[in-house]
Amino acid sequence: MRTVVVDSSRSAYAKLKPVPLDDVRLQDSFWAPRIQTLLKVTIPTQYRLLEETGRLDNFRRAAGKVSGPFRGLVFNDSDVYKWIEAASYALAYEYDSHVERMVDQVAEEVAAAQDEDGYLNTYFTFEKRNERWKNLRDLHEMYCAGHLFQAAVARHRAQGKRDLLDVSLRFADHIYKVFGPEGREGVDGHPEVEMALVELYREVGRREYLELAHLLIERRGRGLIGGSPYHLDHLPFKRLSELTGHAVRALYLCCGATDVYMETGDPELREALERLWRDLVERKMYVTGGVGSRYEGEAIGEAYELPNERAYAETCAAVANVMWNWRMLLATGEARFADVMELALYNGALAGISLSGDRYFYVNPLADRGGHRRQTWFECACCPPNIARLIAYTPAMIYAKSVDGIYLNLYAANKARIELEDGSVYLEQRTVYPWEGVVEVKVKPEGLDEFPLFLRIPGWTRKARVEVNGRGLEHVNPGSYVKVERRWREGDVVRLVFEMGPLLLEAHPHVTYNTCRVAIRHGPLIYCLEQPDNVYDVWDLAIVPGQLDVEWRPDLLGGVNVVKGAALYFDSSKWAGRLYAPAGSVEVTPREVEFKAIPYYSWANREPGPMIVWVKRTQ
Amino acid sequence: MRTVVVDSSRSAYAKLKPVPLDDVRLQDSFWAPRIQTLLKVTIPTQYRLLEETGRLDNFRRAAGKVSGPFRGLVFNDSDVYKWIEAASYALAYEYDSHVERMVDQVAEEVAAAQDEDGYLNTYFTFEKRNERWKNLRDLHEMYCAGHLFQAAVARHRAQGKRDLLDVSLRFADHIYKVFGPEGREGVDGHPEVEMALVELYREVGRREYLELAHLLIERRGRGLIGGSPYHLDHLPFKRLSELTGHAVRALYLCCGATDVYMETGDPELREALERLWRDLVERKMYVTGGVGSRYEGEAIGEAYELPNERAYAETCAAVANVMWNWRMLLATGEARFADVMELALYNGALAGISLSGDRYFYVNPLADRGGHRRQTWFECACCPPNIARLIAYTPAMIYAKSVDGIYLNLYAANKARIELEDGSVYLEQRTVYPWEGVVEVKVKPEGLDEFPLFLRIPGWTRKARVEVNGRGLEHVNPGSYVKVERRWREGDVVRLVFEMGPLLLEAHPHVTYNTCRVAIRHGPLIYCLEQPDNVYDVWDLAIVPGQLDVEWRPDLLGGVNVVKGAALYFDSSKWAGRLYAPAGSVEVTPREVEFKAIPYYSWANREPGPMIVWVKRTQ
Repeated sequence: MRTVVVDSSRSAYAKLKPVPLDDVRLQDSFWAPRIQTLLKVTIPTQYRLLEETGRLDNFRRAAGKVSGPFRGLVFNDSDVYKWIEAASYALAYEYDSHVERMVDQVAEEVAAAQDEDGYLNTYFTFEKRNERWKNLRDLHEMYCAGHLFQAAVARHRAQGKRDLLDVSLRFADHIYKVFGPEGREGVDGHPEVEMALVELYREVGRREYLELAHLLIERRGRGLIGGSPYHLDHLPFKRLSELTGHAVRALYLCCGATDVYMETGDPELREALERLWRDLVERKMYVTGGVGSRYEGEAIGEAYELPNERAYAETCAAVANVMWNWRMLLATGEARFADVMELALYNGALAGISLSGDRYFYVNPLADRGGHRRQTWFECACCPPNIARLIAYTPAMIYAKSVDGIYLNLYAANKARIELEDGSVYLEQRTVYPWEGVVEVKVKPEGLDEFPLFLRIPGWTRKARVEVNGRGLEHVNPGSYVKVERRWREGDVVRLVFEMGPLLLEAHPHVTYNTCRVAIRHGPLIYCLEQPDNVYDVWDLAIVPGQLDVEWRPDLLGGVNVVKGAALYFDSSKWAGRLYAPAGSVEVTPREVEFKAIPYYSWANREPGPMIVWVKRTQ
Repeated sequence: MRTVVVDSSRSAYAKLKPVPLDDVRLQDSFWAPRIQTLLKVTIPTQYRLLEETGRLDNFRRAAGKVSGPFRGLVFNDSDVYKWIEAASYALAYEYDSHVERMVDQVAEEVAAAQDEDGYLNTYFTFEKRNERWKNLRDLHEMYCAGHLFQAAVARHRAQGKRDLLDVSLRFADHIYKVFGPEGREGVDGHPEVEMALVELYREVGRREYLELAHLLIERRGRGLIGGSPYHLDHLPFKRLSELTGHAVRALYLCCGATDVYMETGDPELREALERLWRDLVERKMYVTGGVGSRYEGEAIGEAYELPNERAYAETCAAVANVMWNWRMLLATGEARFADVMELALYNGALAGISLSGDRYFYVNPLADRGGHRRQTWFECACCPPNIARLIAYTPAMIYAKSVDGIYLNLYAANKARIELEDGSVYLEQRTVYPWEGVVEVKVKPEGLDEFPLFLRIPGWTRKARVEVNGRGLEHVNPGSYVKVERRWREGDVVRLVFEMGPLLLEAHPHVTYNTCRVAIRHGPLIYCLEQPDNVYDVWDLAIVPGQLDVEWRPDLLGGVNVVKGAALYFDSSKWAGRLYAPAGSVEVTPREVEFKAIPYYSWANREPGPMIVWVKRTQ
């Protein structure tokens, strides 16, 4: 089996190749329990909700097995597909017969709903049949198809089952006939099918799917779906230099374009992707890796428009940010993409799910007064199965391979056996990352001995040290991969030490929301102040820059490092009844206190209360 | 003629009575030229746009004079009505035969469109006739009716012409039949008809209109229009304590409730209005008097949710804030309402129209990078005629009367003859307000000699002095009316001196958007920094608290006081390529510079560039 997520194995223009996720066995206390929760809680509860909300009945209805109206939103099929994808990857990581039975049954229901001509979408059946492919901008038909393809590929890679793959090939052939080079000009309002088609191409080798994906990207900017920046349809993709509009759509489009680039090497795609990536990380991304500043249109805002209380930062957008940067990393082997991937994974995305595994955020504010709480489900339920599939395939992103060597992208205690051309390598990571910045990698070559290891030195560290069997290396630069090439022998140990001491971040001065405010970073984790850990209203604290301490609290929130430091408390109740006042006229005598901060991903798992990421600072 | 705006003359529970606007003759350089521009530019250009956009044709179509489809939005009739109201008040102030002809013609077109049964709405004609009164929540039928009534009352009061008044009475009778005490339970999704019905009652004395207005307020909170906080339909009005939902709807509802209170004295209405007013001014109002933080739903946000770049602050909401506070002032005679009225008038509302009188803001941000510019018109064109009618009736809000005395609410050079019970008083204000805080009031009693003058001491002044014929009074408190009672003689002069020196304001600490930021206030005016007056990017300046200077610039923006002071310039380009960085790691050496600020209402009348109200400050 080769359960890879994004299969760049034969992609001519990808620098890195994926490692099957089932070759990695987590042994850590961060991700391993989350995957257990995924299998035992998240996937079964989501299954029940797919059933209760009529999403599965929609397939039975399309197959003629039940009657009644279509239920829910036009893109509800995609939730079922993402759930299949999540469950398939989770099963690849760890077998669970209960989950397997659920997935097999759902796959059967899906397959039964397909039309003779290959079309499959449970909304566009019976009375809605005549509306097929009529409103590509708004009705998500290709989007749903893309999620089907990704689910089918995952199921095929993970369980070797062809049922949904055959369904997908028939549907993809249908789409190719309708919208391929000989068909109608059309693109979907919600990108997704592009990356899915490339994966389908990689899975079965049919070049027309890649051709169609490329075409769907090239067709943007011709006004086929209205020509708006909201849909990134105002300019040809290759001429874009700004990410605009709906955050998830924009990032999914970039995923698709990156996948097409890995197969075609189209240099103009690569240049556009570079411009768009810079626009995102230099101007439009939350410090958590979240994306999307606006409730209206779930949109990316202007440059530096990054409100905190009213951040939208949809969980799906953070997931998409991980997906895109994972692809950019595969394409280029550049550490900066791993940095953003890690940031969005541990913070923006992971906040989308409760520690219990059965409650979700759709919207992820960076400041709150206690009103924003995770929900068990949503009418528009894109986020729950999206964060589920991301967690399910996290093990697959820890490593990657180049032509001759092995890349360590993420750190977590695990054992892995990685196949190279001329043999395999057994690796063992010992670490309590992300809580400490020390990683020991035991290397045991099997059938080969000389190969390079590429060790990611995170961009967030100020100083890093790499030792091979106790001997330090030179030229260890944060934000790069250090190449260690040698004749390896069993028992070799590489020791990585990343200076991780918590520190305060500030934002570009044009992020007006963060003036005189700082965020706390500790390693890859962004922190927040939440009320249950603090005596005084956390919105009224101002951090005194200086010593920050870290305390490991195994009992708290599943085990977290708490960051502590000095703050001044300014009692805002002195302002009672006033909204504006002459500067300095409301006198508040500050009080010295200690503040405690917890990882952002873990907030809102206790009683409601104020929370804040960008905390005031004294000057 | 008694061209009053809000006729509380016989309202049993109103503390103040209005003064006809045609009894006031402006002689100032602030409002007088604006009313000239209104008559010569704004009203004629809006007339042309009402014609070009099909709004007038909609009436001709309803009357059977032209064919073709209804054009534009469902509430387009209301734009015509607001224009009539604006033009009528402007004509009351100054006769203009050209404008009068336009209004007469439009009034005739409106009257011709009325149905036999009194119903009048050009959208609900022909093919849409069956949809009348079917969707009160969304389709603005009573809202349009209300604007018709206000236009009709204005025309009747100002020109003595009954045509639209008769139309309105027929329509109001129709509404009373359908929705009165014996009719269907129903309320409109967009309040407006409530205040209009009270004015209609005041104009013609038919008590059923007041009864209906009261009923429409009492009926809220029963879920008749969905029961949402967005429509203030989740609780009975008398139990509300928070302003929520659509800003203009909420404030118009408060206007209507205040009008009903003035007629009925219902104490629970008064208490609710007090709670809602406090919620607004203590938690939800921009420093400009603007209201509404959210693009989504044009809504008032949570407490302290007052973003700057993404302020919505619809021009109509600032106009509504003036309207509501004018009514609260009439109801109570309390100076705090005059303070908010003045603030919203000179700042939030006035920014909605260009100095040239023919371009408008719908949305009024408090910070911008140069992209937000006034437009000649909007598809949803509620704001242009709303700011027009407000400017047209500004002279009417300068004075008011109590049973025995005269209230001076606003200051502007003018001559006025004010009728009291036992005679009249000739008043002359000499001042260059709002540019300086000195006002001389010459008093000449005509036919009576003993009466009190109530002089508003603005809440924005730190210190005020009042002299009568050179003799200073004691107990002159900002934010109150000073009562001066004496036997007046021709030649008496009251001299008011308000300390007006510009000062810096800060915001409640929970307005996170304004941390370490200050706004500049000079008298009633809120200032902003705009790029054309400053060398360095105004977003990169930090005001150094200290001496602020004022310079009168007759050549600039129609004549304004510029506020100047010291600032430090922090070159944000040092951050190039970075969005987040460890605190202190981006070193920027500040440079001492002078900043210049202009009144907020006057921004965006020159070349585009950055603007900011809440400027950073050094500490």
